[in-house]
Amino acid sequence: MAGSRNLLLLSALLSCLSLSSVARAPFEVRDDLHFSLEARQANKDGSVPTYKNSKASIEARVNDLLPRMTLEEKVSQLIQGDINGWMNMNDPLDDTLVHNDTGLANMMNTRAGSIWAGYATPWDKLAYAVTVGQKYLMENTTLGIPALFQSEGLHGFTDNGTIFPSPVGLAASFDTQLIHDIGNVIATEAEGLGINHVFAPVLDLGRELRWGRVEEGFGESPYLTGELGFAYVHGVQDGKRRNTSSTAIARVAATCKHFAAFGTPQGGLNLAQVSGGERELRTTYLRPFNRACLDSLSIMTAYASYDGIPAVANPHLLTDILRNEWGYKYWVTCDAGSIDLQITMHATCDTRECAAKAALENGLSGEMGGGTYTYETLVQQVKDGRVDVKYIDDTVRYLLRTKFSLGLFENPYPYADFAASLRTPAAQAVLQRADRETIVLLENKGNVLPLSKSIGSVALIGPQVNRVSFGDYVFFNATNNAISPLDGFRQHLANISSSTKINFAQGADLWSNDQSGFPEAVETAKSSDVAIVMVGTWSLDQTLLWTPRTNATTGEMRDQSDLGLVGAQLELIKAVQSTGKPTIVVYVTGKPIAEPWVKDHVNAIVHQFYPGEYGGRALAEVIFGDVNPSGKLSLSVPRDVGTTPVFHNYLKGGRPASNPGAILDNAALQFGNQYVLDSPQPLWSFGHGLSYTTFQYSNLRLSPSTVSHTTKTVKVSVTVANTGSRTGKEVVQVYATDKLSSVVTPNQELIAFTKVEIAPGASQTVTLDLEVNNLGLWSANNRWVVEPGAFTIKVGTSDQTFQNATLTVT
Amino acid sequence: MAGSRNLLLLSALLSCLSLSSVARAPFEVRDDLHFSLEARQANKDGSVPTYKNSKASIEARVNDLLPRMTLEEKVSQLIQGDINGWMNMNDPLDDTLVHNDTGLANMMNTRAGSIWAGYATPWDKLAYAVTVGQKYLMENTTLGIPALFQSEGLHGFTDNGTIFPSPVGLAASFDTQLIHDIGNVIATEAEGLGINHVFAPVLDLGRELRWGRVEEGFGESPYLTGELGFAYVHGVQDGKRRNTSSTAIARVAATCKHFAAFGTPQGGLNLAQVSGGERELRTTYLRPFNRACLDSLSIMTAYASYDGIPAVANPHLLTDILRNEWGYKYWVTCDAGSIDLQITMHATCDTRECAAKAALENGLSGEMGGGTYTYETLVQQVKDGRVDVKYIDDTVRYLLRTKFSLGLFENPYPYADFAASLRTPAAQAVLQRADRETIVLLENKGNVLPLSKSIGSVALIGPQVNRVSFGDYVFFNATNNAISPLDGFRQHLANISSSTKINFAQGADLWSNDQSGFPEAVETAKSSDVAIVMVGTWSLDQTLLWTPRTNATTGEMRDQSDLGLVGAQLELIKAVQSTGKPTIVVYVTGKPIAEPWVKDHVNAIVHQFYPGEYGGRALAEVIFGDVNPSGKLSLSVPRDVGTTPVFHNYLKGGRPASNPGAILDNAALQFGNQYVLDSPQPLWSFGHGLSYTTFQYSNLRLSPSTVSHTTKTVKVSVTVANTGSRTGKEVVQVYATDKLSSVVTPNQELIAFTKVEIAPGASQTVTLDLEVNNLGLWSANNRWVVEPGAFTIKVGTSDQTFQNATLTVT
Repeated sequence: MAGSRNLLLLSALLSCLSLSSVARAPFEVRDDLHFSLEARQANKDGSVPTYKNSKASIEARVNDLLPRMTLEEKVSQLIQGDINGWMNMNDPLDDTLVHNDTGLANMMNTRAGSIWAGYATPWDKLAYAVTVGQKYLMENTTLGIPALFQSEGLHGFTDNGTIFPSPVGLAASFDTQLIHDIGNVIATEAEGLGINHVFAPVLDLGRELRWGRVEEGFGESPYLTGELGFAYVHGVQDGKRRNTSSTAIARVAATCKHFAAFGTPQGGLNLAQVSGGERELRTTYLRPFNRACLDSLSIMTAYASYDGIPAVANPHLLTDILRNEWGYKYWVTCDAGSIDLQITMHATCDTRECAAKAALENGLSGEMGGGTYTYETLVQQVKDGRVDVKYIDDTVRYLLRTKFSLGLFENPYPYADFAASLRTPAAQAVLQRADRETIVLLENKGNVLPLSKSIGSVALIGPQVNRVSFGDYVFFNATNNAISPLDGFRQHLANISSSTKINFAQGADLWSNDQSGFPEAVETAKSSDVAIVMVGTWSLDQTLLWTPRTNATTGEMRDQSDLGLVGAQLELIKAVQSTGKPTIVVYVTGKPIAEPWVKDHVNAIVHQFYPGEYGGRALAEVIFGDVNPSGKLSLSVPRDVGTTPVFHNYLKGGRPASNPGAILDNAALQFGNQYVLDSPQPLWSFGHGLSYTTFQYSNLRLSPSTVSHTTKTVKVSVTVANTGSRTGKEVVQVYATDKLSSVVTPNQELIAFTKVEIAPGASQTVTLDLEVNNLGLWSANNRWVVEPGAFTIKVGTSDQTFQNATLTVT
Repeated sequence: MAGSRNLLLLSALLSCLSLSSVARAPFEVRDDLHFSLEARQANKDGSVPTYKNSKASIEARVNDLLPRMTLEEKVSQLIQGDINGWMNMNDPLDDTLVHNDTGLANMMNTRAGSIWAGYATPWDKLAYAVTVGQKYLMENTTLGIPALFQSEGLHGFTDNGTIFPSPVGLAASFDTQLIHDIGNVIATEAEGLGINHVFAPVLDLGRELRWGRVEEGFGESPYLTGELGFAYVHGVQDGKRRNTSSTAIARVAATCKHFAAFGTPQGGLNLAQVSGGERELRTTYLRPFNRACLDSLSIMTAYASYDGIPAVANPHLLTDILRNEWGYKYWVTCDAGSIDLQITMHATCDTRECAAKAALENGLSGEMGGGTYTYETLVQQVKDGRVDVKYIDDTVRYLLRTKFSLGLFENPYPYADFAASLRTPAAQAVLQRADRETIVLLENKGNVLPLSKSIGSVALIGPQVNRVSFGDYVFFNATNNAISPLDGFRQHLANISSSTKINFAQGADLWSNDQSGFPEAVETAKSSDVAIVMVGTWSLDQTLLWTPRTNATTGEMRDQSDLGLVGAQLELIKAVQSTGKPTIVVYVTGKPIAEPWVKDHVNAIVHQFYPGEYGGRALAEVIFGDVNPSGKLSLSVPRDVGTTPVFHNYLKGGRPASNPGAILDNAALQFGNQYVLDSPQPLWSFGHGLSYTTFQYSNLRLSPSTVSHTTKTVKVSVTVANTGSRTGKEVVQVYATDKLSSVVTPNQELIAFTKVEIAPGASQTVTLDLEVNNLGLWSANNRWVVEPGAFTIKVGTSDQTFQNATLTVT
């Protein structure tokens, strides 16, 4: 699909599209007007109303506009519309630039605040649809309030934009600048097409690994998730749309989701209730939102309930904390259809009226589609005195603030040259970085990696070799833009003029126990100098994921009861390993793979979480050493689903392991206590990742080493030396432990990190800011407190200590 | 070990033991006395102090005694002593009736309130030890305050008393009268020996099945656990000691434990922190305690933390709820060593002083041994003004109230005829009932069971045939009193004069993958008419369980990461089943066994949770139909550890299963969503259990069917007809669902049950009381509220509906 194909046509359309070409909806005079029709559009003295004054402050504009709105107009702002109301979006290849006037008018009459535009469709058609919609709103409605036009951008702008690795992989980069740059690319690709609102980032923590959506988040650490989320939000938002107001502060709105505590559903089952108290909420689930989202122009609620209160109608979360404590000023939408779940799942309402009222009055702003549009009941409920209009006014204010902050009133339209912002070389450069930085080298026994470029032949075996496994939240056929590992190896070898021969055998499918391909795979390994077996999980694009009878092991609504390799994949590895050839396993997955046997028996393990478009190539670059791997696990890897959770930052006393047991390779049972035949320790813990070089740490310094609780930051400096023979990047990780606390605190918590590149033989003194406030706890008296006392500050990984020191809070 | 052996000797001792034979501890005059030494012992007018007046009210006696006590005496009441201070308890067979005077005096000087006496020891030695101790306290101390003498009684008085099935099995009886009678036997056996305090019942819910202690509780239902706990507490306590005060209300103190929320440790790891909020606490974890424990003369705290607050120092649990809301008046002890865990595990204290102060001031009463006796610091802490003596006074008051309620001041001694109360025929009759009522028939395809008494031969195969698998909390060699299944079958066949031949082959060990016994097992099956394969889990007695290098799969500190059969057991079943002989599997376990293959492929499955002494015999009685099984699961059985939790009373929305997947027998993968290759539905759900007869339900009636929230009870009546050909017992189970609630409530909750026996062809109208208050929820405003609206009242099991009706609350 080439967006430039219809660029000229669209440009012509943009210039000639006028009110005459779209329906003129007759506006009734409603009985609840605060202003007369004329007064709503203009001031008495004929001057332009403040809300149309691009130089006026956002607050002044909001306060001017709100009283001009009818109740119906207000409610219509709160309900999500869809471009399919005026465009035929059924065929992703259809490129007819026509629309339905009646449908447009109807849509804008009742669902005019935000418009879903997340379709796989030619770019010019998307731009046309947005243009038609915004033009109608700007020119054919009384007040001329532009809409949010919304799409997905979890790891790439979904309508044929550049697709980056899934967030769980991006998190392995531990690189805030990279995440910022990715957000920037996503927004740039969206902005030109008139998409001003993307539904990302996901800040749900990956602490329940059975859940299918683990790939969508930044891993298990509240701190890492918050830092990367902050980078993403600002990457997406920072900047301004063209030709807009001086007061605008963002060009595309990000959406922090899912607020809150969505990532730990009971049983790992999507949407299931979450158990937890106020302390766990504050110290675990809310921290990334508090860090990343105060500037985000929107937030999306979770589907689940937390301790029995549905997130869509949770006044403690939505009002007490988000609005009153945090002072959050922008738009809060629900997830698709989730207001109705109060009726159909939570059973806290039995009518649409109840559901709408409960959501609105408890602090939810807007209703996304996917349900029955319960907010349609609000007009009558206000008229009947069942809902106070002040709730509606408050929430419209949040939405208007988001829109003014985007500068939409001045210019809500796509740009004529949108194609110049899509899939650019600059975006490709960010993509390359992303795919290179996210690969984690888990094991490398005897430094079997990197492979020599003069190695004679390499067997590429397994179901992930000749395919691209993207994570969820991409559109149909997105993988067409991507390089498979098989192609990546071939391209890379050609690029480095290597004569290494690639021998490919799939060996097995991802989705079956069929072993009929094993003999070929074994022969391929035998006839090669080294065998690389690529296995893993797989997800599907947003079309196939929701199509009945498709298969996938990860992604939304694909929850697993087992974290091992599915089907014949483990047996395939065993068959290849038994040839005696050096065997390297590559995991391409959306979550950790719990296979202790693989750790124990193969020569090297590379973990590539779901990659971006450059993933196959980046993998080859790592395997042959042209890229030195620097990714670190954003999730700990359990030995088995039965030993979960294995996150590193468990509360003290939370993993009272003593005397683990084991089932040995020879099937002998070695009995222990916890667990009887297994260990609660992960195979690899958060922060782990090898390099082709080695680093040594020295001279850890805290400045100051004694602080008060009001001190803002402590400088943590440490000297990192590259003691190997290759240039490499190292993630310097700083963890804190509160040695004595009034409530139980985590045994450790990541508290600072940075990534540095160091040449062999060189060393660098790295200085990081440790924010003292992040040492706090949620006290027994329900306050965030940094308590006096000693904190152990460790530089290392979650299971290794390179250096440590004591920080004293007085 | 025969207790009667030394009865005469002991009787003689009891009558001649006098002050002269025990040490006279010189009492110092302390500087903090409220009364002079003389005044402490007697009133000024020479009259007997009120606290010694057996006719005075308990409150008057407490109020009279407390001011007479020195600070040291008070603190000594709070710290658990041990009879090993004056007796040599190292050798369980040693029967020397001697004690150490100095040790006795030292112990009573500092740890005089409660004394651990839970040893495997000859009865006469135990009675001697108690007698010596109480006599010292009564006659050799200033105030003469008798002690609690403590032992275990989870499912039988542990010192060679009658051992009943483990609680998880007892719960399968759904028989409150049985549990009451068992409590009565336990107390009767303890009482005669002078044990006046047993550490049971366990009210932790079995909702985290990996936890080793699941067997100690009454299953997953708060209601069932509360009802059975109430029956146990009253069974133990109701009655009076001989020759005691008129105000005494109990003869042995029960101990509800572990307060609270101990049974859902993170990862299933013993002692690990528990995640949860106030609503889950109130509606799940606290309900059994609130129901069962208000009359219990003691409560024991949990080791774990709940949402970051250690249970031993949780003011919300121990003070706000237990004392202030519930008005609990008695003794609250910690579990062994758990005050020190504030230092060593929770890291909320760094000194013994801090640990003692935190526990005491937050509401814990007493310190059990097993730690460093942190409460020893309290004397000095009071003197230094760091701890207010009022906390000590309050907690001593709770202990004294427990002691006066037991009538100990009048007669704290063992009875000379104690042996007449131990292992009596009456106890054996209760034991028989227990072992018969607790067996659950899970599957019975084609009514393969019961076996004909004229069947030619039965193969008994498997590692549970020729052994007794008791649950934890029994003493060394307790199984010597028990009947193994092999013996039980032989005895029963002899008893019914059957000529059926028993062919035994063990086939496999419980604890290995060794399959060398399979050929013999297969031959044994082939040469028999039917094969019964007995497999399962195993625990150990309190000596072996804590001995290094022993093996066990359940019990305290034996947590599992996998819920399938260990070792070669599943393969043994498969080998036997493949012979084509009708194959019956008997699970003898402490928790559910997650083996879908067994459910799908064998002819019948009998689940016997860890039995009592009569278990092997009861099993034979069930297999041959002389007892018609009537047990119902107190726990749902998952398909796999990765599909847990599977408890039936999940919150609405908590198990959003759609389109489960499966791995088929032929290894084909059938993909689904939740889970991708499995189902969150249990193999069998709570309340399931078959009979050899069939029942039909009709005529469900609620009287009244419309109530107010202040209505106390609703009569639920339903007609149950035995439509089969055998007399059978049926557990009538009533579940409620709040159809619409302000917060998310369980999809169903057991709310009433009773057990009835009905002859074939007969029917019975069963009437149960449904307590309206139990329909309540913990509201968003933190109140227990029965909300107006409709409740579905179902009669059935947790996954079957036999009859239902609607109850309306106005």
